[in-house]
Amino acid sequence: MKNVKAAVCIKCGAEYAAGDDTYTCKKCGGVLEIVYDYNYIKSQLSREKLAARKNFSIWRYLELLPLEEGSRPGPLRVGWSPLYKTDSLGETIGLKNLYIKDDGLNPTSSLKDRASAIAVARAFHAGKDTVACSSTGNAASSLAGGAAAAGLKSVIFVPERAPQGKVTQLLIFGATVISVRGNYRETFRLSAEAIEKYGWYNRNAAINPYLSEGKKTVSLEIAEQLGFKAPDFVALSVGDGCTIAGVWKGFKDLYAVGLIDRLPRLISVQASGCCPVNRAIEQNAPIEWMDENTLADSIAVGAPRNGEKALAAIRESNGITINVTDEEILAAMRLLGKSAGVFGEPAGAAGTAGIVKAAALKTVPADAVVVSIVTGNGLKDVVSAQKAAGIDSTAEGASNLLRIAPDMKLLTEEFAKRGIC
Amino acid sequence: MKNVKAAVCIKCGAEYAAGDDTYTCKKCGGVLEIVYDYNYIKSQLSREKLAARKNFSIWRYLELLPLEEGSRPGPLRVGWSPLYKTDSLGETIGLKNLYIKDDGLNPTSSLKDRASAIAVARAFHAGKDTVACSSTGNAASSLAGGAAAAGLKSVIFVPERAPQGKVTQLLIFGATVISVRGNYRETFRLSAEAIEKYGWYNRNAAINPYLSEGKKTVSLEIAEQLGFKAPDFVALSVGDGCTIAGVWKGFKDLYAVGLIDRLPRLISVQASGCCPVNRAIEQNAPIEWMDENTLADSIAVGAPRNGEKALAAIRESNGITINVTDEEILAAMRLLGKSAGVFGEPAGAAGTAGIVKAAALKTVPADAVVVSIVTGNGLKDVVSAQKAAGIDSTAEGASNLLRIAPDMKLLTEEFAKRGIC
Repeated sequence: MKNVKAAVCIKCGAEYAAGDDTYTCKKCGGVLEIVYDYNYIKSQLSREKLAARKNFSIWRYLELLPLEEGSRPGPLRVGWSPLYKTDSLGETIGLKNLYIKDDGLNPTSSLKDRASAIAVARAFHAGKDTVACSSTGNAASSLAGGAAAAGLKSVIFVPERAPQGKVTQLLIFGATVISVRGNYRETFRLSAEAIEKYGWYNRNAAINPYLSEGKKTVSLEIAEQLGFKAPDFVALSVGDGCTIAGVWKGFKDLYAVGLIDRLPRLISVQASGCCPVNRAIEQNAPIEWMDENTLADSIAVGAPRNGEKALAAIRESNGITINVTDEEILAAMRLLGKSAGVFGEPAGAAGTAGIVKAAALKTVPADAVVVSIVTGNGLKDVVSAQKAAGIDSTAEGASNLLRIAPDMKLLTEEFAKRGIC
Repeated sequence: MKNVKAAVCIKCGAEYAAGDDTYTCKKCGGVLEIVYDYNYIKSQLSREKLAARKNFSIWRYLELLPLEEGSRPGPLRVGWSPLYKTDSLGETIGLKNLYIKDDGLNPTSSLKDRASAIAVARAFHAGKDTVACSSTGNAASSLAGGAAAAGLKSVIFVPERAPQGKVTQLLIFGATVISVRGNYRETFRLSAEAIEKYGWYNRNAAINPYLSEGKKTVSLEIAEQLGFKAPDFVALSVGDGCTIAGVWKGFKDLYAVGLIDRLPRLISVQASGCCPVNRAIEQNAPIEWMDENTLADSIAVGAPRNGEKALAAIRESNGITINVTDEEILAAMRLLGKSAGVFGEPAGAAGTAGIVKAAALKTVPADAVVVSIVTGNGLKDVVSAQKAAGIDSTAEGASNLLRIAPDMKLLTEEFAKRGIC
């Protein structure tokens, strides 16, 4: 790879040649980061060259991705999700320049498709026939889908609480699914042991430094979609820490090669019931495990495996931490749907819930350019969406749902009663 | 609209000026079709002009769409879904040139977003503040999402059997949802009466001739994605008949303006338990109502409201009819997932089920260029997907799902027992 210099340990600084078997630091066990040759990339890439490209997927940024020569990107079309300027939503919460990046429109309906696309391409290059990971769901389905499309097998470890929609998706993609009777930490450990034993390609985002390189493409797109300008703030939900680290890396890369001339501040949004990363930032202390008390399963990660990278990203960006309750997340799901036509899963809408809070507290000025990344599609977790909509088993009637016989008279009466027409 | 000549009744040929209040023929009640000025469009549009456009959504085909001057397309990014050449899937079923068009990647996860985008734009132009429709689900969620994004209200009539995922999506989009205790026919009738009474913009695809103009964009894209070549066959599932009519209109329009030089044959796929359109073709008789016995809810339409247009499309294209059982549909869902990484809902996968059958029967030659349109995302109907995956309540264990404690020894034993590693 002409564009990649090395894989460097973020803990002890040890350097390794980038390659398929480089996962973590052999000296201290630290997480690695892919370091690029920015001078070389500068000579290859410009705003004009990008603007002329017709590949509207993550592969339009080939110069900024760790793809070996001769590697074959998988067939699925990943990335280039829409960035909507959402004036109505912005007005409701008091922001003049609010954008929603709807990453639920990726092939398997989440941002994780970006990382899995890199994993599949690198697994192919490494000559592996099986890819594996542990995941609360989205990383898993993206890997299973990407692997299926590329003709690879996949083995997926999920904690038993993973929503049914996500597990079903895995099975449909032909993955071997190991549903682990335990929490995310135990699930992760079992997957690590099995991957070691069987020699599968390891797509665990915490271990594999190439994954956040895929995730960073969301930032490359945001900047390009804004006309090569960085927003003032980028908000997203944080679980394992890999995504926010990737988002930050994307902006840093663009800045390093001169495609943007300043960097955004990150808004790290976690659930009040599970916020180990935000707590560490707020207390300026190391990350300590927390319980996993939130319905936003994708960010219910008590022991974030990429916590160090996440902390570095938030601190470097002069970032903001915001914790939101499950009620605030459900409210944000309704708000996104009703005023932007975007249906996000709880973790997907959590970033928006954070923005609502930040705007109310004036932490974010009214005229700031703010991007909220919706990381996954609401259809992934219909049970939570039903809670948000008010039609879960505990409350058998959302205010905007009428159950009625096919009779115009009854309808008219019901409308009159509710003051609808 | 300089590009539109008139709205013409497909039954009696009566001509009307195209406009927002033109729904059905005032003389005979027949369905209308939008007729374009192909000479004018030819002078405006070319392959080169299209190739240079950077708008990758249905609006790149503005010259072929019935949008009034000064109309404002809604904010959602609709269309330009990926067309995958699926060699592995093709090989499995004996086809050398099989393509899958994944329309589940639209904003609200179905092809219907294409029609609703036109409805929303025209409702705006007509000065309406409320749009309404009856739908088994996808038309509804697309309308609710599109309306929410554009700042319009929506009122949706669904039959009570509509899957929960779809109803939830409507409520999240802020729609007023009327869940009708009856079948699709009764639901449709109630919606028609209410729309008449309250003067809402009518998005019922059977009534509103502009909707199939939106749906046709899927064909415009297929042709352009194949390098302005029509495939030999296009397969899709048929319910109300509006979508297949739109698909045919798209190819005819392209042919009329010289952007393709031949037309494909349509493959109309219906469920064995609900196939009134296919039966009418096969018996060369008028459409008669049938029961709605299929789990593919989006095509469980016993009394197709756009049957005439569908019959005309199938006949004109020298089309093929294929009926598939629910088991064949579930098998196609697994096949699409496992060999193409595409997760379709039952009606979405039904087209592929039809292709499987057509290839086995040699109705479609092995070297034909075949496109199968996956009309909706599998996440819309997780209950059916669970059946397909073998984890519904009746069969509590898909062969590729292992439930296990976090213990490597147990895992190794289980793998050995199942012959996995």
